[in-house]
Amino acid sequence: MKEAIGVIPGLAVILVGDRKDSATYVRNKKKACESVGINSLEVHLPEDCTEQEVLNHISGFNEDSSVHGILVQLPLPSHMNEQNVLNAVRIEKDVDGFHPLNIGRLAMRGREPLFVPCTPKGCIELLHRHNFPIKGKRAVVIGRSNIVGMPAALLLQREDATVTVVHSRTCNPEEITRQADIIISAVGQPNMVRGSWIKPGAVIIDVGINPVEDPNSPRGYRLVGDVFYEEACKIASAVTPVPGGVGPMTIAMLLQNTLISAKRIHSFK
Amino acid sequence: MKEAIGVIPGLAVILVGDRKDSATYVRNKKKACESVGINSLEVHLPEDCTEQEVLNHISGFNEDSSVHGILVQLPLPSHMNEQNVLNAVRIEKDVDGFHPLNIGRLAMRGREPLFVPCTPKGCIELLHRHNFPIKGKRAVVIGRSNIVGMPAALLLQREDATVTVVHSRTCNPEEITRQADIIISAVGQPNMVRGSWIKPGAVIIDVGINPVEDPNSPRGYRLVGDVFYEEACKIASAVTPVPGGVGPMTIAMLLQNTLISAKRIHSFK
Repeated sequence: MKEAIGVIPGLAVILVGDRKDSATYVRNKKKACESVGINSLEVHLPEDCTEQEVLNHISGFNEDSSVHGILVQLPLPSHMNEQNVLNAVRIEKDVDGFHPLNIGRLAMRGREPLFVPCTPKGCIELLHRHNFPIKGKRAVVIGRSNIVGMPAALLLQREDATVTVVHSRTCNPEEITRQADIIISAVGQPNMVRGSWIKPGAVIIDVGINPVEDPNSPRGYRLVGDVFYEEACKIASAVTPVPGGVGPMTIAMLLQNTLISAKRIHSFK
Repeated sequence: MKEAIGVIPGLAVILVGDRKDSATYVRNKKKACESVGINSLEVHLPEDCTEQEVLNHISGFNEDSSVHGILVQLPLPSHMNEQNVLNAVRIEKDVDGFHPLNIGRLAMRGREPLFVPCTPKGCIELLHRHNFPIKGKRAVVIGRSNIVGMPAALLLQREDATVTVVHSRTCNPEEITRQADIIISAVGQPNMVRGSWIKPGAVIIDVGINPVEDPNSPRGYRLVGDVFYEEACKIASAVTPVPGGVGPMTIAMLLQNTLISAKRIHSFK
């Protein structure tokens, strides 16, 4: 693309505050951009900046023709209205795919979203790359967040799975989950999905990243998924590890969405 | 509202072509408007009119301050692009609730759609009015159309049901449906849901309206639902009849959406 039309895809990331995990995510995204040749711009604002300052930066990136994707690292400080901030990103640059118009198109048959949200897109890509069929399979999505669970369920349904969404109000999550050929878990409950929840041969994608205390670790904690990995390994035909499974896929899909955006804006095939 | 601020809610209906069922629906909507004091405007265009003519009428109603809801009766003739036509309706007057931005907000937690699509809204209203709890219940929606199945599933999930969507690619629809406390069927397959599909005590909402040949009927056919009513009656705790169950609810919700729209436009509480 650079050689053909002289355009380098650009991703702008806005980070507010000093959360260590957010800083790590942003750093990883930046590194990934560099490694594939995407320009990355970063704005780092202090925790106590105003919502208007964030909006001003978004507005600048909306107008900046070298920027094809804009990402606001969540969560934002509690004094800001997340919905207002996310709504300010131009839908053509909303590489996170969180705009309600995108979600609506994702839900509707015969419509196409401009961008598919990165984490659920990465989950489906993992299934595709490993040749796990989705069509006609029973799928259970645990968790119904706007960022992962809900769009993952919509994506699985678009691929003709029969999808059940299990959530905090579900009476018998274990029994329902045990019917699934494909499990995507995104609830943030360490080791919640035990061996007894899993149908033999099921495929499991674990989106949870949960810190648990671990005196043997130099940092005093380690990261585990929603799925009890050691048990799941013995029953499932495949399980994604935490960390290292879904996380890198999310970043890869973010880069892909940025490229899709640049191609669309410049009508480059 | 009329007495307080001199505003009468207005609903505009656009009918294209000579389909008898569509003409009947439009006539019923008009009658319902009259009975509750909503102004109804109707445009009836010939089958061979152009898409542009339809768009011109929509544009006129978009600007007309006496119109608070615009409904394009579907299906449109095959030479028209349904998506183009529906997208032309101003979202503030889209009382059908089919705009992707509405569907996106319906799917997302913490967001509110401007309008909930009439038929699924009527299904939920039936459950509420008859005091059937939804929270924590297993619900199966049969069919995933943009108009009924998909939004019905989203609404049930908003009310904390555990929802599974069964569709044409589902391998074992009978077994899955038999787990449901609440069944909403919207596939257009006459008598498909047999007694063996139903858990004793389940509540069934039958959205299907299917003509089947009947030499004993003066018209040569009669209307049946997706659910085998005689069998379902013996097993379920409640079943909606066809015709007469969901149909009138859809019209009632259309009137409610029109009133909601008029109130919102005029900031009337």
